[in-house]
Formats: sequence, structure tokens, C-alpha cells
Amino acid sequence: MDLKSLIRTIPDFPEEGILFRDITTLLKEPEGLYEAVEQLRDSVKDLSYDVIVGPESRGFIFGVPLAYAEHKGFVPVRKPGKLPAAVYSQEYALEYGVSRLEMHQDALKPGQKVLIVDDLLATGGTAQAIATMVEKAGCQVAGFTFLIELADLGGREKLKNYSVRSVLSY
Amino acid sequence: MDLKSLIRTIPDFPEEGILFRDITTLLKEPEGLYEAVEQLRDSVKDLSYDVIVGPESRGFIFGVPLAYAEHKGFVPVRKPGKLPAAVYSQEYALEYGVSRLEMHQDALKPGQKVLIVDDLLATGGTAQAIATMVEKAGCQVAGFTFLIELADLGGREKLKNYSVRSVLSY
Repeated sequence: MDLKSLIRTIPDFPEEGILFRDITTLLKEPEGLYEAVEQLRDSVKDLSYDVIVGPESRGFIFGVPLAYAEHKGFVPVRKPGKLPAAVYSQEYALEYGVSRLEMHQDALKPGQKVLIVDDLLATGGTAQAIATMVEKAGCQVAGFTFLIELADLGGREKLKNYSVRSVLSY
Repeated sequence: MDLKSLIRTIPDFPEEGILFRDITTLLKEPEGLYEAVEQLRDSVKDLSYDVIVGPESRGFIFGVPLAYAEHKGFVPVRKPGKLPAAVYSQEYALEYGVSRLEMHQDALKPGQKVLIVDDLLATGGTAQAIATMVEKAGCQVAGFTFLIELADLGGREKLKNYSVRSVLSY
């Protein structure tokens, strides 16, 4: 299935000059959603990992069904103030703007191998921030996978010390 | 499996007097996540529906794997300004605070039967706001399902014109 044909491109969102890749048109199609998850599973089938970590909100969209399908646990990374127990907190630069992410300190067990999942790899700022928290927790990043990679934005170079996979490249 | 034993209760979060039901301790356990999705599937197995709608962010955590497992499409309801195309917008009252939700106007086809999924039924404000948008789109609410229902907060009464299911009740 050609997943790209289900992704809508919207110019100048959220800012002028950005070509926004809109996955909602893929998600609403049963075969689009199913096949996207299957291709993400396939992208990491040679990696060994214990648990999946994904960031709010769109990392949940692909990280959770992957965890369900592979019988793994899922650890959410969230925006500040959303997680109720003690957290690691990490600042990061977005493609547009700056923000901060949090992960529960007791979410991972030291020594676990972690797969990090998100919808989109752009500059890699979010991904690097998550990897930093995973390593703070005494765990190892087994790899990353993304539904979409924006190849010109340098994310793969920023993550060059890790195994990085993606399903679709623009 | 006793899913309740995997849910952590944190007092006075996010405000004094609130007992917060923390699902992160369930999600991080492979069998907890898997079984939660299976029990959600079971809760709606007698309902006929075409597509699943779920709100940002925790509605994604259960709505998407349910859609994946049942080979349905998923339509995200998001916070203002996140969706790139024309939206329906609906104000609602939270258990704590007031907010607004949006759904793409072209996400649903008129006449579709919609299952609405979220992690938690509290006062029912979010759920009612989503139902209003689904009906504005010319669709029918086939039902709701929630992992957790806070039975004392009146959500089921607010949704009394709909079929409402939940896996765990507190």
C-alpha cells in the first residue's frame, strides 16, 4: 500500500514556509492506519528491545499500537505538569519553537533496552531529548523509528550515534 | 487480569482533593497494556460502528490500538490550533477547568457510525463535546467506551442518551 498517497500536505502550517504532513487523512482509513503500524513493526523487526517510549501526542498514535502488537509496555513522555509522580525533565528545540518534555523517573527499570517511536523525524530535537532522559534512567536506546522522516532537516545526523529507522521519507 | 492493581492512585493531583488515577503504571507492563485494549474491545463487541474518534492525548492511547485491532479508522480530536485543515470547535468543562476541542470537518463522512474512546469518564464534559461535533458532522454516535469510569461524577447521567461502556469503575 502506498501510504504517502494517504498523507495530505498542507502548506504554511503552522507557520509560513512549512509544508505540514497531515497524517489524519491516513489514520481515518482503516487500511492506512493498519498498514502504517505494520510497516513500523517491520522497520524494527531486527531490533531487540524491552519497552517502547513515545512523546505526547502524536508519538502515542504510533507507539501504543506498536507496543500492543508486539506485547511490550509503553512509557509516555509528556508535556510539563501532566505526569503525576517524580519526573526527569528535558528542554528541547522543536522545528518551530522551544519546549520541555517529562518522563516518570520510575517508568523504566535500569538496564532496559528502549525503542523510541514518534510520527515524525524533523530536526531530531524531540528525539534527542527523549534519548537523554532514557539514558538518565540508566537504560539503553535500542533504536528509533518514525513514520515520516523529513530528510533535509538533519535529524538523522543529530541521532548518528543511534539506530534510526523510518517508514516514509520526504 | 486485575487491571486495577496496575493503576496507581495519586492524591491531590492536579489539585487538592482530586484522587488521580495514574494509568502509566499499567501501560508500562506489557500484559497491562495488552489486556486493557482487549477488555476495551470486549466492552464494545456488540456495537456496530465504522470509525473510532478519540481526544488528545490519553484518548489516543486507547483509541488507536482499538482501531488497529478492529481494522477501523481513527479520527483524532485535538486541542485548538493543532489540526491543519478546517475544524469544528466545541467548548467543554473539564473535571478541573474549561477548554476547547477541535475535529477536522472532513474527517467523518455523513452517516458514519462512530465509537468514541477515552481513558476516563469523569463529568462527561469532554465526551459530550465530542458527541456534539460528531453529530454536527452528520454522523451517529454508536457508543462510548472508557477504560476508567469515576462513577460518582455523573458522566453516565450526562451521556444518558447514548450507549456507554467502561472497563473499570471507581
